[in-house]
Parts: sequence; C-alpha cells; structure tokens
Amino acid sequence: MEYTERALRDLLGAVTSGDVDAMEAARKRQAELAKPPGSLGTLEDLSVKLAGITGKVRNSLENKVLLVFAADNGVVEEGVSSAPQSVTAAQTVNLTRGVTGASSIAARLGCRVVVCDVGVNADLSACPAVLSRKIAYGSKNIAKGPAMTREEAVRAILTGAALARDAVKQGADVIGIGEMGIGNTTTSSAVLAVLSGAPVKDVTGRGGGITDAAYQKKLAVIERAIGINRPDPADPVDVLAKVGGFDLAAMTGAYLGAAAERVPAVIDGFISVVAALSAARLCPAAADFMIPSHASAEIGCRIAMNALGLKPLFDLGMRLGEGSGCPIAMQILDAACAAMNGMATFEEARIDDGYLEPIRKGDSFTVQGGTS
Amino acid sequence: MEYTERALRDLLGAVTSGDVDAMEAARKRQAELAKPPGSLGTLEDLSVKLAGITGKVRNSLENKVLLVFAADNGVVEEGVSSAPQSVTAAQTVNLTRGVTGASSIAARLGCRVVVCDVGVNADLSACPAVLSRKIAYGSKNIAKGPAMTREEAVRAILTGAALARDAVKQGADVIGIGEMGIGNTTTSSAVLAVLSGAPVKDVTGRGGGITDAAYQKKLAVIERAIGINRPDPADPVDVLAKVGGFDLAAMTGAYLGAAAERVPAVIDGFISVVAALSAARLCPAAADFMIPSHASAEIGCRIAMNALGLKPLFDLGMRLGEGSGCPIAMQILDAACAAMNGMATFEEARIDDGYLEPIRKGDSFTVQGGTS
Repeated sequence: MEYTERALRDLLGAVTSGDVDAMEAARKRQAELAKPPGSLGTLEDLSVKLAGITGKVRNSLENKVLLVFAADNGVVEEGVSSAPQSVTAAQTVNLTRGVTGASSIAARLGCRVVVCDVGVNADLSACPAVLSRKIAYGSKNIAKGPAMTREEAVRAILTGAALARDAVKQGADVIGIGEMGIGNTTTSSAVLAVLSGAPVKDVTGRGGGITDAAYQKKLAVIERAIGINRPDPADPVDVLAKVGGFDLAAMTGAYLGAAAERVPAVIDGFISVVAALSAARLCPAAADFMIPSHASAEIGCRIAMNALGLKPLFDLGMRLGEGSGCPIAMQILDAACAAMNGMATFEEARIDDGYLEPIRKGDSFTVQGGTS
Repeated sequence: MEYTERALRDLLGAVTSGDVDAMEAARKRQAELAKPPGSLGTLEDLSVKLAGITGKVRNSLENKVLLVFAADNGVVEEGVSSAPQSVTAAQTVNLTRGVTGASSIAARLGCRVVVCDVGVNADLSACPAVLSRKIAYGSKNIAKGPAMTREEAVRAILTGAALARDAVKQGADVIGIGEMGIGNTTTSSAVLAVLSGAPVKDVTGRGGGITDAAYQKKLAVIERAIGINRPDPADPVDVLAKVGGFDLAAMTGAYLGAAAERVPAVIDGFISVVAALSAARLCPAAADFMIPSHASAEIGCRIAMNALGLKPLFDLGMRLGEGSGCPIAMQILDAACAAMNGMATFEEARIDDGYLEPIRKGDSFTVQGGTS
C-alpha cells in the first residue's frame, strides 16, 4: 500500500452518499409495522440510516468490532494531562486483555476489540496482541511546532482506513472507533477549535480531570499551538498534521474506510467525534455512515456533534474514552434492527381492522370476547 | 395463595432497603479501578445501586426476563384511545410470538418475555403461551365509577408480585416490567394526577396518537374519573382500584415482588413508571430496587420519574410501551457490571506510579520507551 496524497484522494473518491432508495423503502416498511406511527422514535431513524448505509432494509449487525487507535501526544510535556504518558502504553496493552473500561464492556456486549499502535511512545512488540502500525514514537509537542509532517498525517489516515477495511474483510458489520492516548483531549480541542471556528475555551474541557491551574495552562497551550502552527481550517490534513495526533488522524481514516466499505462507524466520545468531524470535512458523504453513541461529558462534544448534524443516542455522563460508549450504541442498533426485522406488519398482526381475528392465516388461535 | 389485605401487608413487610454496606464497598471498588475518578458516570452509579439490591459488589445479570402484563381498560368506551380494544388481545398473543416491538427487541438482546393476562377482555385460553391470571374481562369505565373493587386491586397486586417471585425462582437476575392494554395511558394519567397532585393536563399526553378533539375528551374523562371516584391519594390501593386498571395494579405488585426478592426491576415508559410510583407509595424501600430505562415521550413520565427520585438512562423518543425500553436498559446494566467485574485496579494495571512497568507480576511483557 502506498501512503500518498493520491491514495488519500482515491479513498475519498470511494465514499459515496447513503442509498436514498433503500432509506425510502425502510421508511415505508416502518409505516407498515404494527405500532403507532413513530412510536419507536430514534430506533426507527436508525433503521432508516442503516438502510442508507448498507442499501438493505433489513440489517443484522452480528459481527461487531471496536477499533482502538493508540498513540502518544508530545504536548503532554506541557503538563496538560492528569495522567503520565506511560499510561498510554500500559492501557494499550491492558485493552488487549479485556481489563480496561471499554474492553471489559465490549467483551460483555459481544464486541471484538482490535487495538492498534499508530504512535505509542514505547516499543510494544513484546505484546503481539497490539497490532503494530507505528508511525512514530509519539507526536511532537504542538505548543512548539507541528505534531507531525503532512506525509505522516496522510500515512496515519490511510493506516486507519486500511484497518477499517481489514475489519470489514474479516466480517465486521459495524465498527466502533475509539482511542487511547494521554494528551489527546488537548489535541482534539485544538483540532475542533480550528475546524469549527469556536473559541478555544468553548471546546476545551478537563479531560481525565485536571486542576484549575492545569486547565488554564491547557487553554493557553491550545491557543499557542494554533497561533504557532496556523493550520488551514479548509485543509483537514493540515489541521491534523499541525495540531492533531496520530490517534486522531488514524481514527479519521477509519471513518473514511468504514464509509468506503458502506459499514456503519460508531462514534465514541470527544476525541472520536472530533475525528469524525475531520473525516466529514475531508468528505461530507462520510457522515452518512456515522452513528453517534453517547454525549461525552467533555464540553466540546456537543459542538462537534452539531457540526456533524448528529445527536447522541444517550448520555450516561461517561468520559473514559477508549471507545467505551460504542458497544452500548451497538446494542441500540441491534434493537433497531430487531424491530425492523421482527415486527409484524398491521396486516400480519391483523389489528388494523378494529376486530380481533386469527393472527395468521391457518392459525388455530381464535378469540371470543365482547366489547366493554 | 390468599389474595388478602393481610397477604399484601406481608409482601410490603418483606421489602427492606438497599444494602448500604454493599453500596459502600462498591463505591470503594470503583475508586480503585484504573480510570479517572467518575469517568464511567452513570455506569458507576448503576454498579453501586446493583450492589445495594443484591448485597454483592460484583453482579452478573445473565438471566433477563421481561414481564408483560396485559389487560383491557373499560374507559376506552369513552373514545380516548387511538386503537380499538381488540388490539390488546391481538398484541398480547403477538408478544408471545416475538413479532411486536418489545418482544422482537427482547429476543435480540437476550431477554426472555413472559406475557401474563390479568384482565384482557377476550378468552385467550387457546393461546397457552399467555399465562392466564385473568381477574376480569377488562376493568370498568373509570369515567362512570371505580375500575374494579378493592379486593380485585389487591388480587391484581399480589398476582403481579407472585409472577415476579416466580420469575426469580426460575432464575431471573433482572426483571423488566411492561404492559399491553389499550386505554392504559388514560388510567395511568389519572393515577399519576392523584398520586402526584399535579394538574391532569400536566400528566396527560396523546398515548398512541390521538386527535386534538380526542385529547380534550381524554382530559375531561380523567377529570371526571377523579371527580366521581374521589380516590384517596394516601391509599395507593384505593387509587389503583378506582382510577387504575388490572395492568397497572399487577405491575405495581411486580415491582414489590422483585424488591422482596432483592432483584432489580427495570422500568419501561409511562405506564410502567406510574406503576413503579404506586409501588413506592405502598412501600418507599421498593424504589431502591428500581432501575429506570428511557424517558418516554409521554409527558407525565418526567413527573413520575422525579417523584421516584430517578433519572432515565436514555431518551430515544420511544412511546411504544410493552416494555420495549427494558431490554436496552439491561444492556446498560450489563455494561456497568462488566466494568465493575472486569476492570483492573490501579495496582493491577500498574499505571499509578507514573512509570511503565510490567502489567502483572510474572508477566513477560516489558516496554522500552523514552519520554518525548
């Protein structure tokens, strides 16, 4: 595989919009199902969106995968994070063992976790369960210069896309997109401020939990990073290269890869939705393939969701990251599919005529009942 | 089994508060798990609540049951419902076949559905999959007099409790509580108006979807029902008997039965939360065993949730009933249990010391990595 700008253009060209005919057929089917119109709310909307993604009215997401992209971020040397950088490597390994938040939840909810090192600042080769796609030993400090070269950003995007496409080749029907990278709420806020044009303070939260002093420093660091690097808001690759990170860039690519394969990509929390927005800025049609999960407690999440035209499915006050919201959203998708696939139509249910009759032809079930 | 006021008092006496020691132990364990404090949000709260319910810090809700109580409501003769009464019987049978909204979702999400006729206005004996606990062929029209006798209300409550206890004896670790009964948003609004003291219009919505004229009639019918019957707000049995229904009363009992067995009871939408409130008014400790699911689109839901001191876990704009929100909430409970049971502590994860070390003792995994 070549990691070139040309390969990136090919990837973007492979993403086309959701299938409007399938969506219309799904809406029609929903109207025929035996329930008050619209009474399954967002589950109905999800079934329509899934039809647009796959081109089929009936979908079944048997094979669930959570892709977790791990990378370190040089900006941690500014003291913007609550945890030391070594946590990235430790939790990357722990993710493969099912002993972190996202991986324990994923295991219980039937979602396979694929952990990929795209830039951890440690040699993880002793842990083969971590897929090695390392581009560098961590990004550079964005407060002092660009996080990476443009070539590295393109490589990270294409690496993420390739991993999503590999997951689909191996059977994935749905892909969640998560991360592990100390310092990545700082880079995500920087990328979001540039892409959205919102003030830094409106898109910056406290990440894992930092003091007031560290929070003020975080705001200043992000302002400085944007001021020094001057990323071009109209060029998402430039933004990711200058103030992003390998995790964000690879996740951006994973959204594009999933969209190219016409497989739903589930967004997790703040970092994940910033990557989703980056993908949609590279290719607006990619948003047709994105399914939100939760409203992260991190404040920038809402701005990024709004910019994507998406509404989180639930809000459980989670701010762990790792993709921890994705397996829950996949269960809601399963519910949406189950209703679409399993419910009887009014005709089948025989409840459209105001009078009780055998439920199905040839059925021995009969009822005698008066009216009240 | 005797269906007497004395048996009801015994049931209420069997419900005691959540286990505060187990809850404290669960909080302590959460603080030890390798994550930023509080970063799993409501999942942490749920794990603490479950500890209070079962008395154990680690829980696993393998055996999931949705109890659906079906009954007709005489008030439909006032023209307050969007669907004919015959729909109750038809959908009660359809529920046993997995072709309704809740039953198709439950099947996909690993939740067994138990359908119980406590008052359907039709002979369902030809469908043995429906458990027969019929108390009458529908309740009477609350706009003209009481829905049922006090004796019938007590019988319905104890019937619901017995079904919950039976489910637990058969292995249930968690019980969702749903319903099927045309007309039961009207009775639920009446019960909620009395129990909460809120104006009728604040607790009355459009149910399955009715016209403006039918909605005005529904409001008037509820006002008349309360005016004619004068239920005693301090006596929930009186309220259920006079302006409730067999579905509501049996569901109330199911919450009490689950609480007596110290098993979590999952609330569905509007009717289900009104029954939950009725149970909590009979026995405040019962609320310790209730887990909310979604914020129903029906307007009274929020008032009832607030009165219970509960906050819905998610809002998907659903208003189907049947217990359709419960299987989704059970997946969120599974996620909460998985994190509590599966996550490493800071000590196990070896990420508390700011320096990367082998993740577990005796582990061959080692890392060399510089700092950036």
